[in-house]
Amino acid sequence: MSDASVISPRRARGGGGAARRAERTAVSVETAKYIERNIPNYEVLTEEALQVIEANAETVLAEIGVNFVDNPAALDLWRAAGAEIDGERVRIPRGLARKLCATAPSEYVQHARNPDRNVVVGGKNLVLAPVYGPPFVRDAEGGRRYATMADFEKFVKLGYMSKWLHHSGGTVCEPTDIPVNKRHLDMLLAHMVLSDKPFMGSVTEPSRAQDSIEMCEILFGADFVRDNTVMTSLININSPLTFDSVMMGALEVFARHNQASIISPFIVGGAMAPVSVAGTLTQVLAEVMAGVAYSQLVRPGAPVVFGTFVASIDMNSGAPTFGTPEASQITYGAGQLARRMGLPYRSAGSFCGSKLPDAQAAYETAHSLNMGLLSGVNFMLHACGWLEGGLVASFEKFVMDADQLGTLHHFARGVDMSENGQAMDALAEVGPGGHFLGCEHTQSNFKAAFWRSDLFDYKPFETWDEEGARDTVALASARVKKLIDTYQQPPLDPEIEARLRAYVAEKKASMPDAFA
Amino acid sequence: MSDASVISPRRARGGGGAARRAERTAVSVETAKYIERNIPNYEVLTEEALQVIEANAETVLAEIGVNFVDNPAALDLWRAAGAEIDGERVRIPRGLARKLCATAPSEYVQHARNPDRNVVVGGKNLVLAPVYGPPFVRDAEGGRRYATMADFEKFVKLGYMSKWLHHSGGTVCEPTDIPVNKRHLDMLLAHMVLSDKPFMGSVTEPSRAQDSIEMCEILFGADFVRDNTVMTSLININSPLTFDSVMMGALEVFARHNQASIISPFIVGGAMAPVSVAGTLTQVLAEVMAGVAYSQLVRPGAPVVFGTFVASIDMNSGAPTFGTPEASQITYGAGQLARRMGLPYRSAGSFCGSKLPDAQAAYETAHSLNMGLLSGVNFMLHACGWLEGGLVASFEKFVMDADQLGTLHHFARGVDMSENGQAMDALAEVGPGGHFLGCEHTQSNFKAAFWRSDLFDYKPFETWDEEGARDTVALASARVKKLIDTYQQPPLDPEIEARLRAYVAEKKASMPDAFA
Repeated sequence: MSDASVISPRRARGGGGAARRAERTAVSVETAKYIERNIPNYEVLTEEALQVIEANAETVLAEIGVNFVDNPAALDLWRAAGAEIDGERVRIPRGLARKLCATAPSEYVQHARNPDRNVVVGGKNLVLAPVYGPPFVRDAEGGRRYATMADFEKFVKLGYMSKWLHHSGGTVCEPTDIPVNKRHLDMLLAHMVLSDKPFMGSVTEPSRAQDSIEMCEILFGADFVRDNTVMTSLININSPLTFDSVMMGALEVFARHNQASIISPFIVGGAMAPVSVAGTLTQVLAEVMAGVAYSQLVRPGAPVVFGTFVASIDMNSGAPTFGTPEASQITYGAGQLARRMGLPYRSAGSFCGSKLPDAQAAYETAHSLNMGLLSGVNFMLHACGWLEGGLVASFEKFVMDADQLGTLHHFARGVDMSENGQAMDALAEVGPGGHFLGCEHTQSNFKAAFWRSDLFDYKPFETWDEEGARDTVALASARVKKLIDTYQQPPLDPEIEARLRAYVAEKKASMPDAFA
Repeated sequence: MSDASVISPRRARGGGGAARRAERTAVSVETAKYIERNIPNYEVLTEEALQVIEANAETVLAEIGVNFVDNPAALDLWRAAGAEIDGERVRIPRGLARKLCATAPSEYVQHARNPDRNVVVGGKNLVLAPVYGPPFVRDAEGGRRYATMADFEKFVKLGYMSKWLHHSGGTVCEPTDIPVNKRHLDMLLAHMVLSDKPFMGSVTEPSRAQDSIEMCEILFGADFVRDNTVMTSLININSPLTFDSVMMGALEVFARHNQASIISPFIVGGAMAPVSVAGTLTQVLAEVMAGVAYSQLVRPGAPVVFGTFVASIDMNSGAPTFGTPEASQITYGAGQLARRMGLPYRSAGSFCGSKLPDAQAAYETAHSLNMGLLSGVNFMLHACGWLEGGLVASFEKFVMDADQLGTLHHFARGVDMSENGQAMDALAEVGPGGHFLGCEHTQSNFKAAFWRSDLFDYKPFETWDEEGARDTVALASARVKKLIDTYQQPPLDPEIEARLRAYVAEKKASMPDAFA
């Protein structure tokens, strides 16, 4: 199941003689397989606490209920399923939502156009995807500015070149120079052409979700899309307890086509949820249960992910704060709740509130990445590149975070307890006062043993000083340039690429420009 | 046991009319109580793996053995206890070391001259102490330079002013302007006079350990020091498997006086230990068992701490690397081994290899701090201020890290599952589409609920930009200045201070200057 490379034959997609010729000349880009954890999860909640939260979430659904806004068809589905409908309010009898959720799969394969890059979302796996949504970009040279399609393409290229990133993501930044009603087409095209990693569909209108499906039918073939999941898309809940018709419309399109959706409360604690960990977890669980249950009313068995996006609020400024201990507790707790539902889990990321990719950004991000790994997250959106509370996608932070993702891979391997791992021969060979650097065991294990950054400075002080005393941002700037300079487009059947471009051109021509 | 403030009456130390007068005018400095974890530990090793490592460590002690160098008295003690002595090599029959370790206490109180600042080392507690040992200092204004006594005093003041720091530490930097054979006196005096938090003794010569005891007898009273632990000092093992006479000499002095020692392998994996996690853990356990057993041969019941200092080596540069996933695995595993021995555990810290307090420094540090909390560390040396692999103590990083230590306190509280924590009233009051900011529950819980940094920038972009677009280092520089400017010496009986100063002056006058 987890050996993604055998799930689908390469020839099925992007094949043809031209593609094969392109492949022969392409530079090979190494991408690590998604993380298969060989470590335990960290569980902050006791069994008793979990039961209290689960009972409270049922109370919320039964007594307070949730709103499905501007969506009479959804209300009909709920009514038929046994919920109590009062205007747009849906009250779900105890046990019903959880029962409906049972048809959602515990894991699913998301296919990439390069089958070596398929990912399995669920189980003990962790799939890493880049930042999603920022209207601004920042780099050391140009500072902070509105994002453009050129920025978007640069991020997709960086994602493709990043060894520890398994997924190309979705709206890596908002290409604000393209009309709102057309930019999803350019974004999808970029993911499909510039990368061969899996990607996300558009959710900003149900029609754009439909366009996503149609473009995938060109890329993968219609039969393949009918039978397989080729997108994982982000459906945010309007917390508290509100499901708007735009997001639900997109969810409906994806679920009907058996495409995966992350159903995700979007919470700044103290604003969209109670200012307490247990209260927020109760709300998260109620919202996810309602959303997942609804997806299964649309199509039983549709793949969905238990999502949780959590920041906390700063009382002084009203700003969301990231990498806080309370956000960590919520992330750990939500992981436990997701596993008890048997659902894949999405949370964590390279979260920070800092305006710059400085120490604040890195502290906050490292907290989030660590708890993401240990909380059992299966799909980590925003795993690199996030800055300034998600308002900014940073080129330098993208490669800084992407490098850090290597630490998650190494830690997740667990401890090698083989005879070689125990290293008793080395201990005997070296003995008291000796040195291990030259011993047989060190020589034969060195390369695979310890993680090392491809970005950080490990040089002696004097060397580093002579070379310009560069900080992490300066090193990252250089790395961004190097990756972009050596980027080569992964091979794709020119006929498929032409059909994708024609689809985008035709769609764009059929609509007036809209900028809001 | 953990309510440190009742262990010893305040009048016992630093009392007298003058001290009371001083106290009335002193600015109150808030220090959080040491962390009492209300969360589970993270355990990376299975029961089976633990048993393999424990069996291997016994094999190392029995078959390879350890060296006690230049220390015939130690060899005599070992011989009498049943070990096999061959030159300086001590081979310890299986089970003997562990049996000897059994008399070491599972926790102990380290007294401070202000009893409110006593700490309990062991159990589920975590005591945080600053960086130890750097010969250089760095700040944004002055760059990197050799540390002086003035720097040392500034760090002690910062430690005293740091809310989340429970311990004043030891050699917060090396005062290189003071002769090597005299600087321990000035360092001890600074800790005793400039702070009222607990501190560490000198270990660089047995005679300096003896001086530490004598100065404590002045500060606390000789009777008090006889009956109580007033120092926790750092005894490094010369890994692999070597116990030198300087460190053992200091250990002997402290153990005989019932003062606590951290017995700590000092390992750069791949150099002083095998390039594998299980192999390093085996060596760590063997070394700690031998060292702790030896402390109990010197004085059964002497308080000791299971120490583990771990970095890994970078193959390209030979430099030690910090905050790596392998170091984390070792730290988690050693915590499990320490708990199975019933010993307090020292590890983790604000480790990083970066030359600057930049993003690299913060990523690496945050990894270390997180795993320190979750691995059950009881005494965290180097919890703030560490830079450049420990060569540099950074003023800015000191306050940056010290601020981060607040996240550990908050996370360790665990999840409040009280009725108030569950917040069901808030969920009912607000309902779908509402906002929690104004609700009763938020208003009454806000201050205590979410951690916020006292250092980081949480302002809107425009405000931050207008105020000079400062990065974390700039904010930290300002904070250093503010703390130093508002520092006031905690009240101390002038007679005691005079006797301490006289002791130091007399000792210094009795010795020629030595600079190596």
